[in-house]
Amino acid sequence: MTNEALQAYLHEHIPLSRAMGVQVVASSVDAVTLGAPLAPNINHRDTVFGGSASAVATLAAWSLLHVRLSAEGLPSRLVIQRNSMDYLHPVAGDFTATASLEGDWAAFTRMLARKGVARIAVRSQVDHAGEMAGAFRGEFVAFGGERE
Amino acid sequence: MTNEALQAYLHEHIPLSRAMGVQVVASSVDAVTLGAPLAPNINHRDTVFGGSASAVATLAAWSLLHVRLSAEGLPSRLVIQRNSMDYLHPVAGDFTATASLEGDWAAFTRMLARKGVARIAVRSQVDHAGEMAGAFRGEFVAFGGERE
Repeated sequence: MTNEALQAYLHEHIPLSRAMGVQVVASSVDAVTLGAPLAPNINHRDTVFGGSASAVATLAAWSLLHVRLSAEGLPSRLVIQRNSMDYLHPVAGDFTATASLEGDWAAFTRMLARKGVARIAVRSQVDHAGEMAGAFRGEFVAFGGERE
Repeated sequence: MTNEALQAYLHEHIPLSRAMGVQVVASSVDAVTLGAPLAPNINHRDTVFGGSASAVATLAAWSLLHVRLSAEGLPSRLVIQRNSMDYLHPVAGDFTATASLEGDWAAFTRMLARKGVARIAVRSQVDHAGEMAGAFRGEFVAFGGERE
């Protein structure tokens, strides 16, 4: 899946991604980086609203699972069950969220194929001006996974 | 602070609140309820994007602290340190987030007055069609608190 295709998918199906100005910076089966500008995500302190940072981190995490499941021909319905977010520094400008897998992918896909349902965790790191500004962790459930 | 004043403040200073269609349903020093429609917050499954639900819950929690600190003449700078969100059910329509205090308000304001910095936790419950759909918990730090 190209960056352009992923971005078009997000903007079409999750309109808040467009409202937040989300751009796909990089995407592969190992990591997805989304970028967003300050302006549409600003708060009353002229820094990024925490809810925006967490939402972009959520999108990055979801996108990574979507990209990887699609690449492996395992289309699934993904549902977020839980997430946490630590805010380390105020973000006074454009930012990125980079998602990477925390869980065991082989065990996840094995369970998905066998049971039709499996859980996996994804971490997203929020960066601003070369510094880590936030740490997101999301737990997702996938349903389906019939190999195409 | 009236519902209208709080809503105007949110829409002016946190533009994502306007993009998400956030309305102040009720606000007092004990609880703040924000509402949001499905359309601007929809995902690829025609339910509410988790990042939107969490962001509205964050706004409700922040608003409750803002309303209560303002009512007590303790203007403060509020920073979110951490949050978690449990997604219990998909939200297939308009939803609300209702924030209430978890922490000890008296201890919080005493510490804020004495040290100029204090921490408190707030819970927000996300509801849809009369059912609890999500549970948010945020930890905030307040700075300042010089009595006006």
